[in-house]
Amino acid sequence: MMRTRPLKVALLGCGVVGSEVARIMTTHADDLTARIGAPVELAGVAVRRPNRVREGVPEHLVTTDATALVKRGDIDVVVEVIGGIEPARSLITTAFEHGASVVSANKALVSQDGAALHAAAQERGADLYYEAAVAGAIPLVRPLRESLAGDKVNRVLGIVNGTTNFILDRMDGSGAGYSEALDEATALGYAEADPTADVEGFDAAAKAAILAGIAFHTRVTLDDVHREGITEVTAADIASAKRMGCTVKLLAICERAADGRSVTARVHPAMIPLAHPLASVREAYNAVFVEAEAAGQLMFYGPGAGGSPTASAVLGDLVAACRNKLAGAAGPGESAYSRLPVSPMGDVVTRYHISLDVADKPGVLAQVATVFAEHGVSIDTVRQQGKDGEASLVVVTHRASDAALSATVETLRRLDTVRDVASIMRVEGE
Amino acid sequence: MMRTRPLKVALLGCGVVGSEVARIMTTHADDLTARIGAPVELAGVAVRRPNRVREGVPEHLVTTDATALVKRGDIDVVVEVIGGIEPARSLITTAFEHGASVVSANKALVSQDGAALHAAAQERGADLYYEAAVAGAIPLVRPLRESLAGDKVNRVLGIVNGTTNFILDRMDGSGAGYSEALDEATALGYAEADPTADVEGFDAAAKAAILAGIAFHTRVTLDDVHREGITEVTAADIASAKRMGCTVKLLAICERAADGRSVTARVHPAMIPLAHPLASVREAYNAVFVEAEAAGQLMFYGPGAGGSPTASAVLGDLVAACRNKLAGAAGPGESAYSRLPVSPMGDVVTRYHISLDVADKPGVLAQVATVFAEHGVSIDTVRQQGKDGEASLVVVTHRASDAALSATVETLRRLDTVRDVASIMRVEGE
Repeated sequence: MMRTRPLKVALLGCGVVGSEVARIMTTHADDLTARIGAPVELAGVAVRRPNRVREGVPEHLVTTDATALVKRGDIDVVVEVIGGIEPARSLITTAFEHGASVVSANKALVSQDGAALHAAAQERGADLYYEAAVAGAIPLVRPLRESLAGDKVNRVLGIVNGTTNFILDRMDGSGAGYSEALDEATALGYAEADPTADVEGFDAAAKAAILAGIAFHTRVTLDDVHREGITEVTAADIASAKRMGCTVKLLAICERAADGRSVTARVHPAMIPLAHPLASVREAYNAVFVEAEAAGQLMFYGPGAGGSPTASAVLGDLVAACRNKLAGAAGPGESAYSRLPVSPMGDVVTRYHISLDVADKPGVLAQVATVFAEHGVSIDTVRQQGKDGEASLVVVTHRASDAALSATVETLRRLDTVRDVASIMRVEGE
Repeated sequence: MMRTRPLKVALLGCGVVGSEVARIMTTHADDLTARIGAPVELAGVAVRRPNRVREGVPEHLVTTDATALVKRGDIDVVVEVIGGIEPARSLITTAFEHGASVVSANKALVSQDGAALHAAAQERGADLYYEAAVAGAIPLVRPLRESLAGDKVNRVLGIVNGTTNFILDRMDGSGAGYSEALDEATALGYAEADPTADVEGFDAAAKAAILAGIAFHTRVTLDDVHREGITEVTAADIASAKRMGCTVKLLAICERAADGRSVTARVHPAMIPLAHPLASVREAYNAVFVEAEAAGQLMFYGPGAGGSPTASAVLGDLVAACRNKLAGAAGPGESAYSRLPVSPMGDVVTRYHISLDVADKPGVLAQVATVFAEHGVSIDTVRQQGKDGEASLVVVTHRASDAALSATVETLRRLDTVRDVASIMRVEGE
C-alpha cells in the first residue's frame, strides 16, 4: 500500500554533502519512493549564503532562516549537515520539539551531546540517526547497534580519519616530513585550510567516542577520549617503524577492560605491523576492526569521507527514518544501560617504542634498563647506535600500563646520560 | 519502560549454531533484556535426536515435535537453524500463521523461497530476518538492506564460502592438488563428510542469490545463479595463476548490467591479482566487496561460518525481531520493486585465462589467434611453451562476453592442432 502524501524533508546545510543529498533525492526519487513506501520531498534547504549557485536545488526552497524551517510543523525528517555545535544543536532540538526525526552527520555534536539529543528524540518518539558521522559511507553505527546487538563487543580499532591517513601514507611512501605531506594533502583537497580538527585528532576522537558508546552500551563523550594528533610524527618515526616491519597510523582504539568493568577510548599515532590489514589502508580510506565475543574479528573498509560517500550514509538513515515515520515507530535509541566508567589513559595497557638520545659511554644501557625495570616495564628489544660521543637507543617494551610508561619516561628524562627522549610511540595490532 | 512479561523464543534445531544461540541467550540474558527492553525467554527447543546431551539447554524445554512448538500460539520469535528445505519451510510458514516472527540461518530455503516467505511474513505483519544465512557473522544483509537503502548498488563481489576458500588457500600455499587439500579441510573440520554443497558451489550460489536480490531490489533465486564449483581446479591452474601474479578464489559476483536493465549472478573459481584485497583472504574467512554509486567501494570481512559467529548474527536478528514485536512494528520486508530480469551467463562480460595443449608446429598460434578474432574476442597476452612435439598455449583475453568465449572454445576444440582445452578460468578484480 503506497501512501501518496509525500514525507517532507528539511535540509540544513547545502555544502559538499548537502548538495549531494539534494541531488540524489531528485535523481533517485523513484527508488527512494519504492524503498520508503511513500514519496519523499525536499521541502526546504537552509543555507548561510543564499546567493551561491546550488545546481539542482530549486531556488524557491532555499532559505537563510533555518529555525523557521524546522519550526514549520510539517517537516517529517530534518537532515543536519551543517556541522559544529551551534546552531546545529538548537536546530536539532527544535526539530524534535516539532515532531521531526533527525538525520545528522555531525560527529562533534553527537560525541559531545549525544545523550541529551537522544533523550530529546525519545521524548517525542522520534529518531536520531548519524551513520554519516562515523567513517563516511562505511556502515558502522548500524552494524554495531543492530547487527551486533546480540553480541558482546570487546574492542574497536580503526583508522577513522582520512586526512591524517593520507598524510601518514605519504610520509611512509616518500619519506617526506609532516609539513611537506600536509602541504600535499592540502593541495589535493584532502586537508582543509585549517587542518586542526583532523591533524590534532579531534575528528577521530569524536568518532571514537561515538563508536565506544555504541559498542559498549555506555556513555562516552569527546572529553573521555585520550587524544594525540599526528603533528609530532617525524620522518624519523616512520623510518623507525619501517625498521621494525611496521608503519605509523593514527588509530582510534576503544577497549573494554580485561575485567569488563570499565572501558577506554583513545586516539593517537601508533606503529602497527605491515602484516596487519590496517597497515595497507592507503590514502584517505578508513577501516575499522570490531572484535566481538561470538562474532570474532570483523573488518569494515571504505571511503571515510567525501560528499558522495557521506551522502550515501545520510540517505540510508533518511530511508530508515522515513519508514519509521510511516510505521509510527522509532528505531533503536541510545543504549547506555551498562554505565561503564571510562578509565583514564594511564590504565591503558599496550606496547611502546621509545627513542632516546644518550651519551655514548659504558653503562648507559644498564642505567636505562634499570629505570624500566624499576617501573615494572619489561623490555622486549633494545637497539643501540653510536655516533660522535652520542648514541641513540631504541627500546621496544612488552605490554605495560601507560601510567608505568609515563613514569619511566619521567625518570629517564632526569638522567644526566639521557640527552633527549626523542619519541615515544605505542605499538598496536599485534 | 521495561516490560516484565518475557518474549518467548522457540529454537528449531540445536546443533552447532542452535546450541550456541541457547547458550548466549542464557549467559547474556541481562544484556539481551536491556537491549530489547523486555526479558527474552527460551520457550522450547525442537530437535531430531532428543537423547543427545545439550549442555546448558534445560531438558524440559526439549521436544521432537517442532510443529507443535511453533503452533503453541505464545511464541514471539521462532529461530530456525535446521537448514534445508523441509521441514524448515513448513515450520516457518506455520510460525507466521501463528503470529511469530522468524529468524533463520537457512540460505538454501531463503534463496529458493524467499519471496513466498516474505509474503507470508508481511501478511501477518511479522519479521523475516536472515543475516546468518550469508557470510556468518559479517553484517551484510542489514547494511545492504538498510545502510545502503539510499544508494544504488552496482556490484557485489566476494568470497562467501569458507570451506572452498580454505581448500584453495591450501592449494595455493602448498601446491597441493584438490583432493589432498579437501582431505586436509575434512580432517580439520572445515569440510563436511559430504562436501558437495560447498565444493560444487551450491552454498555460495544460494548466498549470491540472496545478496543479488537485496542489493538490486529484485528477485533472484538459486536457479538464476550460474554455478561452477572448485572440484576441477588443478594444481596447474593455481601455478598458472601465480605466473600471472594472481591467485584462484571461488567468487560470488552479482552485477547490474551497464545499461541498468538487467542483473547477473554467478559463482565460479576465478583468478584475481595478488594485490586485490580478496587475494589475501586466508583460510575459512569471508570477505565481500560492495560497489555503490554514491558510497563507492566498501568491504566487509570476517569469519564466514562456525557456531559462534553464526549465533552472533542470529542473535542480532533476534534482538531486532523482539524490539519490533514490542513496538508493534515490522522491519523492512522484501524489496523487489525493480523487477530486473536476471540475464544468462552468456551475457556476462569478463576476462579469461585459457590453457590449450596444441601441436608444436609453425602456424598453430596464428590459427588459434584467428579463431579468437573471428569470435570478436580480443587477446591480451599469449604465452607459448613447447615440449616434445606438443606445446602449451596460454591465452589471456581482454573483456568479452561469456557467450563469445564459449563459442571461441567450441571452435578451438574442433581444430586438429588443438589437442585439449586444458582449462578455462575467468580473471576478475582488475
